[in-house]
Amino acid sequence: MYLKYYYDESLSQASYMVGCQKTGEAALIDPSRNIEEYLNTAEKEGFTITKILETHIHADFVSGSRELAERASATIYYSLEGEGDPSSEYTFDRSIRQQGVRHGDQIKLGNVTFDVVFTPGHTPEHISFLLTDGAASAEPLGMFTGDFIFVGDVGRPDLLEKAAGVKDSAIKGAEQMFHSIEKVKSMDSALQIWPGHGAGSACGKSLGSIPTTTLGYEVKTNPAFQFDDRKNFTEFLLDEQPVPPAYFAVMKKVNKEGAPLLRDQKNALRYGTNVEKINNLLRENVTIVDSRSREAYSQSHIPGTVNIAYDSSFTNWIGALVSYDKPIFFIADPHHFSQITEAMNAIGLDKTEGFFSPAIVEKYEEEHGTDHYEVISPENAYNMQKEGNLSILDIREEHEFEEEHVKDAKHMVINHLPSKAEELPDHTMALYCGSGARSAIATSILKAKGYTVKNIKGGFMRWKKENLPTE
Amino acid sequence: MYLKYYYDESLSQASYMVGCQKTGEAALIDPSRNIEEYLNTAEKEGFTITKILETHIHADFVSGSRELAERASATIYYSLEGEGDPSSEYTFDRSIRQQGVRHGDQIKLGNVTFDVVFTPGHTPEHISFLLTDGAASAEPLGMFTGDFIFVGDVGRPDLLEKAAGVKDSAIKGAEQMFHSIEKVKSMDSALQIWPGHGAGSACGKSLGSIPTTTLGYEVKTNPAFQFDDRKNFTEFLLDEQPVPPAYFAVMKKVNKEGAPLLRDQKNALRYGTNVEKINNLLRENVTIVDSRSREAYSQSHIPGTVNIAYDSSFTNWIGALVSYDKPIFFIADPHHFSQITEAMNAIGLDKTEGFFSPAIVEKYEEEHGTDHYEVISPENAYNMQKEGNLSILDIREEHEFEEEHVKDAKHMVINHLPSKAEELPDHTMALYCGSGARSAIATSILKAKGYTVKNIKGGFMRWKKENLPTE
Amino acid sequence: MYLKYYYDESLSQASYMVGCQKTGEAALIDPSRNIEEYLNTAEKEGFTITKILETHIHADFVSGSRELAERASATIYYSLEGEGDPSSEYTFDRSIRQQGVRHGDQIKLGNVTFDVVFTPGHTPEHISFLLTDGAASAEPLGMFTGDFIFVGDVGRPDLLEKAAGVKDSAIKGAEQMFHSIEKVKSMDSALQIWPGHGAGSACGKSLGSIPTTTLGYEVKTNPAFQFDDRKNFTEFLLDEQPVPPAYFAVMKKVNKEGAPLLRDQKNALRYGTNVEKINNLLRENVTIVDSRSREAYSQSHIPGTVNIAYDSSFTNWIGALVSYDKPIFFIADPHHFSQITEAMNAIGLDKTEGFFSPAIVEKYEEEHGTDHYEVISPENAYNMQKEGNLSILDIREEHEFEEEHVKDAKHMVINHLPSKAEELPDHTMALYCGSGARSAIATSILKAKGYTVKNIKGGFMRWKKENLPTE
Amino acid sequence: MYLKYYYDESLSQASYMVGCQKTGEAALIDPSRNIEEYLNTAEKEGFTITKILETHIHADFVSGSRELAERASATIYYSLEGEGDPSSEYTFDRSIRQQGVRHGDQIKLGNVTFDVVFTPGHTPEHISFLLTDGAASAEPLGMFTGDFIFVGDVGRPDLLEKAAGVKDSAIKGAEQMFHSIEKVKSMDSALQIWPGHGAGSACGKSLGSIPTTTLGYEVKTNPAFQFDDRKNFTEFLLDEQPVPPAYFAVMKKVNKEGAPLLRDQKNALRYGTNVEKINNLLRENVTIVDSRSREAYSQSHIPGTVNIAYDSSFTNWIGALVSYDKPIFFIADPHHFSQITEAMNAIGLDKTEGFFSPAIVEKYEEEHGTDHYEVISPENAYNMQKEGNLSILDIREEHEFEEEHVKDAKHMVINHLPSKAEELPDHTMALYCGSGARSAIATSILKAKGYTVKNIKGGFMRWKKENLPTE
Repeated sequence: MYLKYYYDESLSQASYMVGCQKTGEAALIDPSRNIEEYLNTAEKEGFTITKILETHIHADFVSGSRELAERASATIYYSLEGEGDPSSEYTFDRSIRQQGVRHGDQIKLGNVTFDVVFTPGHTPEHISFLLTDGAASAEPLGMFTGDFIFVGDVGRPDLLEKAAGVKDSAIKGAEQMFHSIEKVKSMDSALQIWPGHGAGSACGKSLGSIPTTTLGYEVKTNPAFQFDDRKNFTEFLLDEQPVPPAYFAVMKKVNKEGAPLLRDQKNALRYGTNVEKINNLLRENVTIVDSRSREAYSQSHIPGTVNIAYDSSFTNWIGALVSYDKPIFFIADPHHFSQITEAMNAIGLDKTEGFFSPAIVEKYEEEHGTDHYEVISPENAYNMQKEGNLSILDIREEHEFEEEHVKDAKHMVINHLPSKAEELPDHTMALYCGSGARSAIATSILKAKGYTVKNIKGGFMRWKKENLPTE
Repeated sequence: MYLKYYYDESLSQASYMVGCQKTGEAALIDPSRNIEEYLNTAEKEGFTITKILETHIHADFVSGSRELAERASATIYYSLEGEGDPSSEYTFDRSIRQQGVRHGDQIKLGNVTFDVVFTPGHTPEHISFLLTDGAASAEPLGMFTGDFIFVGDVGRPDLLEKAAGVKDSAIKGAEQMFHSIEKVKSMDSALQIWPGHGAGSACGKSLGSIPTTTLGYEVKTNPAFQFDDRKNFTEFLLDEQPVPPAYFAVMKKVNKEGAPLLRDQKNALRYGTNVEKINNLLRENVTIVDSRSREAYSQSHIPGTVNIAYDSSFTNWIGALVSYDKPIFFIADPHHFSQITEAMNAIGLDKTEGFFSPAIVEKYEEEHGTDHYEVISPENAYNMQKEGNLSILDIREEHEFEEEHVKDAKHMVINHLPSKAEELPDHTMALYCGSGARSAIATSILKAKGYTVKNIKGGFMRWKKENLPTE
Repeated sequence: MYLKYYYDESLSQASYMVGCQKTGEAALIDPSRNIEEYLNTAEKEGFTITKILETHIHADFVSGSRELAERASATIYYSLEGEGDPSSEYTFDRSIRQQGVRHGDQIKLGNVTFDVVFTPGHTPEHISFLLTDGAASAEPLGMFTGDFIFVGDVGRPDLLEKAAGVKDSAIKGAEQMFHSIEKVKSMDSALQIWPGHGAGSACGKSLGSIPTTTLGYEVKTNPAFQFDDRKNFTEFLLDEQPVPPAYFAVMKKVNKEGAPLLRDQKNALRYGTNVEKINNLLRENVTIVDSRSREAYSQSHIPGTVNIAYDSSFTNWIGALVSYDKPIFFIADPHHFSQITEAMNAIGLDKTEGFFSPAIVEKYEEEHGTDHYEVISPENAYNMQKEGNLSILDIREEHEFEEEHVKDAKHMVINHLPSKAEELPDHTMALYCGSGARSAIATSILKAKGYTVKNIKGGFMRWKKENLPTE
Repeated sequence: MYLKYYYDESLSQASYMVGCQKTGEAALIDPSRNIEEYLNTAEKEGFTITKILETHIHADFVSGSRELAERASATIYYSLEGEGDPSSEYTFDRSIRQQGVRHGDQIKLGNVTFDVVFTPGHTPEHISFLLTDGAASAEPLGMFTGDFIFVGDVGRPDLLEKAAGVKDSAIKGAEQMFHSIEKVKSMDSALQIWPGHGAGSACGKSLGSIPTTTLGYEVKTNPAFQFDDRKNFTEFLLDEQPVPPAYFAVMKKVNKEGAPLLRDQKNALRYGTNVEKINNLLRENVTIVDSRSREAYSQSHIPGTVNIAYDSSFTNWIGALVSYDKPIFFIADPHHFSQITEAMNAIGLDKTEGFFSPAIVEKYEEEHGTDHYEVISPENAYNMQKEGNLSILDIREEHEFEEEHVKDAKHMVINHLPSKAEELPDHTMALYCGSGARSAIATSILKAKGYTVKNIKGGFMRWKKENLPTE
């Protein structure tokens, strides 16, 4: 048997290839949409990809299943356990090769067997795959657990409710998760666990930065495995889950149907430093993201653009804060064009239409002038707040705010800014988050909406370091 | 003034950027469709591209004018001298910024002036641009001559007739060329000449491998400048011109209207070693080009594929031999995907749909078996010909064949094979060209059409080296 | 805790980074010499690399410990268990930061603890590291087993004897391995096992293509864990081990001392198609490796060059067959220059001096003529053998030959060809291996030594498929 | 004949390849040290590089002649006209293939002829090469003029005196230049001129941004060609020449002897974010250049580092301001490592030892704190100057300062800062140049020397725009 681990850092997402050298077949578990790496491996190792296994309908990234089914002429194996429930039922077009499976089914790949195990909780249809390498032993060696078991965590059950609006599904999911955990607790403790996500994913609250684990280790150490009582468990599980990004609802829909094929995408084009073009766009209903560093943006930016720096959190924020319905343009370093396009594909933002170069900002400044915002020290912010010259706005998660925050700070989670900004007061605000990174994005969003805003340097960490008042 | 030379080796095509540092404007002369490099320069040098100058309606590559007009919001300056003549009149859509010009007009770019000079011959509407750097002097420093004057050659006048079927236009063009040459002969001999093509272009017959020249040097050394008599000149000029590739007719049409924008292109996708997919395609009306080396192809290839190796002549042969109406797939080294796509764009073959990896041939062999053809030595070919076991086919240009060829060889120029192969005899043929490169392509074309063919190693060069009979 | 898996496919070698987010420190376990990837991760994750843990003195690749100690200012932790035994004792220069450890010692990295476990067998000094993530639990989560436990295999104990000439060490190592296995059998079956090698490594005989495993799964399925009797175990373990490459002895020496720093290496330079240079080199005592495909080499090569194609087995064969004492030059595709240099560094072949381009072969042919060898079908080889016109030479491993071979074939393992070729008969030989790949290399080696040789197409697989006589 | 133009933008330096297709030989004129591109062309076009032609002993970049002579086994043709003059005589080691030439000599390359023309002025030994393509005509087509004729300028004659200290050589060179110009004025006006440098080079004072010109155009428009009187000419020529970078003296020496071969260079290594290492280096006698943007550097930098941003002027300033005798380390974006190494090689700064990543600044800040400097608006600078709180320092060229400068500004040309900084007043200074770019470098140099400095935003351009007082 052949097994390879893939990890997409921008999505904190794991996928897996299993191959049988004897028959030359390979299967992918939970592939992402940038499937080139899978094709590379298959080619190098001499495998034909024949099967694609989906643990569940993903909410946080575009599944590569349909793309791979088309390009590798492979069959998608998906859960039938959600049948009848619109939120949990796949609706692939009939032209896609597909095979529904249920708890107890076996999927064969040469000498290799995948046993389907129904493990609802994160979603109602969620299944896991128990892997047995028949060439070595009749004993299973591990389980692909998708968003069921993570290292040190389990999948959150509240996404359907919070992101897709399925009423009461959070509590129901938590209860299912309790039973799914009970079900696997008794399995062989030596089983490897191959999870669907790692640290940084919004599909759980405290995922570990360790690629793989074992059932025995999780049983002993995973907080979610330490409950005997269903009620305590559900309370624990629903507590402190972060606000899900708005795009999770879109992803659900895309993945239930199978994502559009990449060959049908419009090409994003490069517009260099074409000031006239960007000026026209600023009058249209499009999104223009300035992906330069927050330092560069704060000093000078084209009014009407939003700042989401291209760094390791880019995918996260772009998905959370940008509309899926409008064309998107970027101001970006040419080195990042292809990576940005891949990142956008990965979360289904298929409307990227063009790229401008960073030098356009300077050109724009010469012709039309640019805008900037102030980065303010905690002390200055505190003094101005005291004098009534500004309000302080905390844009962190609910539980972060509740734990401790700047005295007299208002609060709105960053993910809510695009839709609820109008609830904010109409005078000068100084924003903060933990370190100043998230609030830089938030500052640019509010600025583009016409607010007078500043960003507090160093965020809450520095506020506390300087012993300024909190509550 | 700023001047930069661009040279696209795959097209043997030259383009130029002229900029005025004072006003920050730049103009492009005869840009190709891969406009990234122009945008790069403009960005680096701080120029805004505002003008695009076209010497004529190109037949051998897709002009980048429309793409650039859109992406840089620039204006296309084109010749009105062909007005009323359907073969020579631009028909840009009104949404494209455009400005027709005539002999005597001036185009200003800050301190720089382009004087329009009507120089028909290669085409009826052909104009050249005399360049004056007003910041340095009132004297012109050179002329952008497009396909009028090349280094050591002038543009051929017979393309409209041979490629686009405009009757009697060859002789008329030759006469116009005579007068155009007369017209410029008296200009300052110190003028630089910046031509539109270099060695290898099919727009002339003997272009030199030197990027730039001067009017004085051409007057003294260019064969086309040595005639006083119009008749002798036209005879000379029409003699020995190579068979134009079939795609020249398509290019004419595309360039008159302005090429489709690249953002509307379908994306070509990678299909790795998906044998099932290629098998399906082989049953459909598509073209599959195997771009591996001719050695690899001759030893083993998938039946039904055509071999055009990805080397420096790729653009030339792909344009000449592949249909513009069918989807195109490639078997290609992944390192070449983007270069092949660029090359296809450059000549308007916008229907590239997918790429397979070279490893698919081996996979195909295991499942279905592959085909091969024999590479035969001149001596063996000669012996088999003598014994009546094969015919020898010369696929070189008319004038090459006329000069000298293998005794008793049949003849069909490679460019005619796609359309006239059925005129060939239905028994074993051994093909040759000059060195064995062109005949490898021809062998694969005839093989895909069902003929029994071999390729003669080393071509006519080796045939002569071995003192075999010619005539 | 942070954990990342690295896998060098050309070495079939695994290394690991463990980090503690709280203190920002990271440790590397068994790093290879191309340390850029480690530095990249550390930079991205914000870690300072402070510790390097060595399980044993590696024989198959250059350890990156010294390079990393220098460049990251980190400390090497190495086994003291081999003290007093020259084959098993590290002799790092005092300028290198180092810390010897013994069974029972603990290495702390912020919240993380590594417990040193003495696990001799593969080598006398071999230790493993039991990993505990104190932030999550007091329970260990896994063990870095180096060349002790692999997936489905254990480290071979005979390298010291076969590669480094340490008498009787094979049997002694096998006995130690028996006890090491006994020692860990009783540990928690849920422990993850992170091995030092994967499939393709010569440090064992049947390593699996699975990155990680668990102790429980190995106890149940690993053949080496199924013995109660020491004698049976040692017999089993010493059976069918492949001939180790000659360079293993060199690696041992290099790794005991710490490899030379890369900044002291001479740069390999590109000589293009400089025929005069290669001609001079051919008269000197240097090695010239032609890394083109075996098809290309067989058709035409420069006499005196050896053919080791740049593919996934390159590192393996270059280390096995090339002298460490002579300057090395390559004929190679320019795309491969940096990868070849990395591969050479990885196994300590630091004398790479230059690269020629593949086009030199054609140039050489024009000026001096080239050489070729015949690829012969099994049937033709059989017929010529029958008629006494050639001998057939099997160059596979001892146990492959013993299992079954071509009737009347002679035998010499490819690894012995450089040193023992003169024992071969002095007439035409046709070589074979399993599929024709190894024998292509062998053919080129014997050809460079003056033998008349052919390569049998498809190797023993095709011989059997065609039902030719074996024994 | 084949002719190709090369242009190294970082050096503003032109080199040329001339080939004869008939014999397959090629020659390089004035190659730079990064010779890969030449080898690429030769390989692609099938040429063997046999000859290297040097117009003179270059002062501004390392000639690639010796490297190329070694790697391509070619012969260097150099001027003997400087014989007996230590500043102008080549002293190549005898192991290098070489051939001295004098005025009137001919160098043959197949059908191509280079006639040697003695054209002193820029240097005493300077020669030019008149090119005749015998295959086309007996008429010469152009001249490689090195640093004799540029587009719109001629070579400056004062470098030997200013950079190498050869007394009275400036005036003598200017006189020679007068005669050299006289000599060529009468040649065919249609000759192309291929110069050795373009705009931005310090080998002249007003080079044009046009790659090639003609003798006729230069005779008519080049200011240096408009003099009949030697005295007026020399005055004109010596006027307003910029201060030559200090490294020109080093280059002269290197090029007279032939540059060290690149294979003997130490490799520069990557040290990631190793704070301990950089801290040790800061205590040693090494140079650490921070190549991040001036914005990033001004906000936070490691004390003791100097800021030369990696942009299009990098080569210029690094050569001018960094010592050739000390090891050099960089803080640089990993994308720039190889380009920086190439740039350093190009000007013979062969002591680059290592690279740190930009992230080290943040790490350093956490552990030790960092430094910053203020960017001040012209208005604030003016006010503080008025109040006596700072002095303003102009660091532009002599002639820029003389033309117009900030009222009461002190003046020291940036090139003199490394050696003469101690002459500056010991209180706060605000620096300016034309736009703020050069003064950012100057600010970092003075800061590293312990001065209290600010940089004036927008430089003299903005000062004037704001109508602040000048004189």
